[in-house]
Amino acid sequence: MRLYDYSASGNCYKVRLLLALLGREYERVSVDIFAGETLTDAYARLNPARETPVLELDDGTLLLQSNAILCYLGTGTSYVPPGALEQAQVIQWLLFEQEQVMSGIGSARFWLLTGRGGDQLAGRLERGRKALEMLEAHLQTNSHLVGSACTVADIATYAYTHVAADAGYDLGGFPAVSAWLDRIRQEPRYLNDLVPYPENARPGRGRSIYDR
Amino acid sequence: MRLYDYSASGNCYKVRLLLALLGREYERVSVDIFAGETLTDAYARLNPARETPVLELDDGTLLLQSNAILCYLGTGTSYVPPGALEQAQVIQWLLFEQEQVMSGIGSARFWLLTGRGGDQLAGRLERGRKALEMLEAHLQTNSHLVGSACTVADIATYAYTHVAADAGYDLGGFPAVSAWLDRIRQEPRYLNDLVPYPENARPGRGRSIYDR
Repeated sequence: MRLYDYSASGNCYKVRLLLALLGREYERVSVDIFAGETLTDAYARLNPARETPVLELDDGTLLLQSNAILCYLGTGTSYVPPGALEQAQVIQWLLFEQEQVMSGIGSARFWLLTGRGGDQLAGRLERGRKALEMLEAHLQTNSHLVGSACTVADIATYAYTHVAADAGYDLGGFPAVSAWLDRIRQEPRYLNDLVPYPENARPGRGRSIYDR
Repeated sequence: MRLYDYSASGNCYKVRLLLALLGREYERVSVDIFAGETLTDAYARLNPARETPVLELDDGTLLLQSNAILCYLGTGTSYVPPGALEQAQVIQWLLFEQEQVMSGIGSARFWLLTGRGGDQLAGRLERGRKALEMLEAHLQTNSHLVGSACTVADIATYAYTHVAADAGYDLGGFPAVSAWLDRIRQEPRYLNDLVPYPENARPGRGRSIYDR
């Protein structure tokens, strides 16, 4: 099993975190997004959307979308509950994560840390603030996003939420979210190897899908 | 089972289409998004994100996110394949649908048909064009998005793709997509009850989450 991976990407970190929690072995192939490594024809054959991560199974099957990869790896483990309703609730939060958390907190953080900003920044910051409010309301009466144990929904949402302060959010104002972040950190074999964006992530320093 | 539903919403139409294909009975509760009906406190208790559709199960459980609702309703039927890999591939396409198709073709169509436009329109149109190209490439060698039969991934993606011409896309340039749209229309019990946006969907005529 091979993970095409970028070490500063929260979407990639999600997958590394689950693989660590599961104690799974895999080959990690580093892809430098900002050195143009997702812009090649070879990378387009892995993922026409030119995004990371990509999971390549031993038979060559390619799986895209970080949250779909989490579902695949988690199926049959405690991280994906049995039962159609609970699985649909996990998928509900994975879609929320992509739409509100990654695209709100994650995009705002990326733009701010790499000096992008632009006229969409305020809207993304507001989207992220609403996402934190919705998480806070849910976690005031629930220990986890689905059921009472950590699932791939929590792992996906953890990835960009735990670094929300980088985008200027004050997590002190979200005590239930903060307590939940701490609960995720208590999972056996927890890993945090998300690295800061490197210098070549700034506009004009590298070449990526973000600067075409 | 109760569906909180807006008749001109592609996200709601997805769910109505699957329910029709499955021959399932349900109570349909119309929500007029543009008459402010998602802005009430009562609606926020159904869905704090104030979006449609919402599925309420007989025990009162609420399920959000159209694509998660499709997974729930489809589980145990031919529209959600067995097998962890195939299910993850379905989820991959559901995430793609939300990120590229709904947010590309769907948003551009909504803005154009209701006179919104704005400075994000060009980017969304481009996102939708890339989505059509990715669908075309996949469907040139595959009859359906996952495996060789219609799944909830096809139903979700059909919803906004089949009305792409409303946003100015020429589906004649995407013959594999066009043939796939025709295959979906051949599903037994196929339904198309998506209605045009009404007059109150235009800015200044109504009151909705899109005009706050």
